[in-house]
Amino acid sequence: MSKVTRREAIGTAAVGVAGVALAGGASSTATAQETARSLAFAGNHTPKPLRFNPASLTGLSERLITSHWENNYQGSVRGLNTIETRLAAAMADPDFPTVAFAGLKREELHRTGSVVLHEIYFDGLGGNGEAGGSVRDALSTAYGGFDAWEAEFRRTAMSLAGGSGWCVLTWNAHTQSLHNYWAWDHMHGAVTGAPLIALDMYEHSYHMDYGTAAARYIDAFMANLDWEVIDTRYRAAIA
Amino acid sequence: MSKVTRREAIGTAAVGVAGVALAGGASSTATAQETARSLAFAGNHTPKPLRFNPASLTGLSERLITSHWENNYQGSVRGLNTIETRLAAAMADPDFPTVAFAGLKREELHRTGSVVLHEIYFDGLGGNGEAGGSVRDALSTAYGGFDAWEAEFRRTAMSLAGGSGWCVLTWNAHTQSLHNYWAWDHMHGAVTGAPLIALDMYEHSYHMDYGTAAARYIDAFMANLDWEVIDTRYRAAIA
Amino acid sequence: MSKVTRREAIGTAAVGVAGVALAGGASSTATAQETARSLAFAGNHTPKPLRFNPASLTGLSERLITSHWENNYQGSVRGLNTIETRLAAAMADPDFPTVAFAGLKREELHRTGSVVLHEIYFDGLGGNGEAGGSVRDALSTAYGGFDAWEAEFRRTAMSLAGGSGWCVLTWNAHTQSLHNYWAWDHMHGAVTGAPLIALDMYEHSYHMDYGTAAARYIDAFMANLDWEVIDTRYRAAIA
Amino acid sequence: MSKVTRREAIGTAAVGVAGVALAGGASSTATAQETARSLAFAGNHTPKPLRFNPASLTGLSERLITSHWENNYQGSVRGLNTIETRLAAAMADPDFPTVAFAGLKREELHRTGSVVLHEIYFDGLGGNGEAGGSVRDALSTAYGGFDAWEAEFRRTAMSLAGGSGWCVLTWNAHTQSLHNYWAWDHMHGAVTGAPLIALDMYEHSYHMDYGTAAARYIDAFMANLDWEVIDTRYRAAIA
Repeated sequence: MSKVTRREAIGTAAVGVAGVALAGGASSTATAQETARSLAFAGNHTPKPLRFNPASLTGLSERLITSHWENNYQGSVRGLNTIETRLAAAMADPDFPTVAFAGLKREELHRTGSVVLHEIYFDGLGGNGEAGGSVRDALSTAYGGFDAWEAEFRRTAMSLAGGSGWCVLTWNAHTQSLHNYWAWDHMHGAVTGAPLIALDMYEHSYHMDYGTAAARYIDAFMANLDWEVIDTRYRAAIA
Repeated sequence: MSKVTRREAIGTAAVGVAGVALAGGASSTATAQETARSLAFAGNHTPKPLRFNPASLTGLSERLITSHWENNYQGSVRGLNTIETRLAAAMADPDFPTVAFAGLKREELHRTGSVVLHEIYFDGLGGNGEAGGSVRDALSTAYGGFDAWEAEFRRTAMSLAGGSGWCVLTWNAHTQSLHNYWAWDHMHGAVTGAPLIALDMYEHSYHMDYGTAAARYIDAFMANLDWEVIDTRYRAAIA
Repeated sequence: MSKVTRREAIGTAAVGVAGVALAGGASSTATAQETARSLAFAGNHTPKPLRFNPASLTGLSERLITSHWENNYQGSVRGLNTIETRLAAAMADPDFPTVAFAGLKREELHRTGSVVLHEIYFDGLGGNGEAGGSVRDALSTAYGGFDAWEAEFRRTAMSLAGGSGWCVLTWNAHTQSLHNYWAWDHMHGAVTGAPLIALDMYEHSYHMDYGTAAARYIDAFMANLDWEVIDTRYRAAIA
Repeated sequence: MSKVTRREAIGTAAVGVAGVALAGGASSTATAQETARSLAFAGNHTPKPLRFNPASLTGLSERLITSHWENNYQGSVRGLNTIETRLAAAMADPDFPTVAFAGLKREELHRTGSVVLHEIYFDGLGGNGEAGGSVRDALSTAYGGFDAWEAEFRRTAMSLAGGSGWCVLTWNAHTQSLHNYWAWDHMHGAVTGAPLIALDMYEHSYHMDYGTAAARYIDAFMANLDWEVIDTRYRAAIA
């Protein structure tokens, strides 16, 4: 690279990175390869399998669960990989405009949130809905009764019905307290939060089975919760 | 009511309103008090003091830091307390409309985010800006060099200049990786994230000292970072 | 208050609160009632009927259209009425906290956007999808070809697939130009815009018929567009 | 171009546009130039001059107004031009990923909103703050008194203090009514709205002069409003 001007080198790097992106390999410069290989922008996320038989849930059809997992969740995994590749290319380009970088960084947060929340959503299902464990006691204490907690959780979820977002029971490590957080989209959440239950309120989670009857979907979601998983998450979070 | 002071009258009115709310059904005053006392809606957050002398930073004036801490941060603490009190009243009212509940839940997340992020922001200052510790090594590994990390951190921050938001170096516990997340406002963030550095990009963080020269503010912020604190956060996060 | 029914008590309380409101001190009930009747917070929006037979569209089922119109659209009309009533009460209360007012104002914008956009959405359907009129020419000029316009419109819509939002062909009165705007939710849009086509990308618009196959839904939407309506909107906008 | 296949033409165009982007000029193909010249993505917005002497306002310093106009407003004009150029290049690339396109479209709306709202903001200043004209009467009617309107306008603005956003008095052409809309950022607004007063609540609008004392800034803003301009906007909007 010693004989090229800086601008030519940048052009080469840009082409090289684009090459990686398009070709999935075979890039031309060491710098480009290094950037492309950085862990932060590796773009190699793979979908996590369902831990239960999608035909086995109560009140949530196999068709719905399979579509949700294959299309929405896996679409976000692919989107995140694409964005990470784009971010690597953008960082290799010293002239990449800040205003366009903002858009990439938003999508990185967006797709990361979607991937993580969906994994927590699916992994929380497969149970019989019977609340128990230390998390049940902790919720009773925090809300003045387990029913009071559930009432607020359901009301928060219903405040998102007809649109999109998540209702997330969260252990907030900074405030050392339990809360049901309202989240407008995949990017919202308590910054120091450990999600214990993530209830997907995007309409792709229920329209196939329930149309606009969101309350009935929430009933079904609650009936399939695996409280052993939730309790394990809680105990890990407060440890 | 003619003999009570205005403050007493307000206190009485408040009880009265709570009473109406609770009454909306067959609840008892005892239950109301219990709800009001629930930990989730206690409304008793108190400001955390600065751990450094606000006149001691380099390139961030005492006037700026004091205004930021007294007005913006403490305003959010007060706002969060108000919202929690409102949420308690709303939950005691079975007829409280869902559409209005949504607004309260959004502000709960908003103010919680502001309180937590500001505490992480201020607690990260007071150092000499010299990066070190295991977190430095981890950033070098994740980004293919510490400079590459810093370049992306600064570019992410600059993509928010002129508006609002946060640039947050985060350990994502779910993906087990380090990322600089772009956050549009106090509600954005990775749901399973442990913030290591929170850089406030709201204009109240720098306009008094730097006007619109956000890059110079970022220089000053970096120069005051206490990397021992950041490293401690990192080691706690990966533990 | 022991002799009044619950409804009477609530009515009285409402008037009383309005009274406090206005009062700021010494207001009269007449003034309070006037505020309650203020046009800005009248809370008397009524649903606009569909202008076509919901069973008559191509590729959009009667069940889908009816559910969308009855549940999502009319739900927003009711929500807007509720919020306006709440805003009137909040303005009548001099001690209403600003942090809670923010939540109401957000929902006012949110529900207003939903009502207006849905009315523009439904009123644009019922045609045969054949583009024509002066708006077609104007789109060709603006985008260097009608196909180029349609390509960008569809790509913008697809960038919202799997989530929520709107793709809105808009005449921007301030910049005097045509654009397809991406909108994340009911609150987004060009502030000086006249919407010509509003394509609902919330999943309630298509999941019942198409599941996650958003591109096929967009095909169906385009095939039912009534370009006479769109052209009329365009000519009114540029007048 | 008559002898090349469609795919070849598109490929060529993509290279050409990319060439423009990299080279900053001197693009190679007619198609690329045509795309670059499409009105929708022309990228040739120019700043609108202030219509008043920035040193002449009451309570808003020349330094503040000049910084706001030169840095924040003109920065958005430049950002919008950059985004339009990027969108032209993206549309010329049939493989441009949807997930990255979303980011560009968001910034297009974001920067368009910033440019338009700032122009309405600045053009509304330079007056003596004396409300009058038919708009004053209309506000009195809509809110049950001009003072009631102003109280709600100020409360809406204050609900954004300490963060970002706009408070926009708007004629909603669809609902045929006047409202003060809360807007979280440059992208928010009523989709069929004609803004009459746009009050910038981003902190760059006041921190230099007032620090966090947003109420005093709002006083100053109101004192400089030119109600002849506002009335002209109103009469044009309802025409």
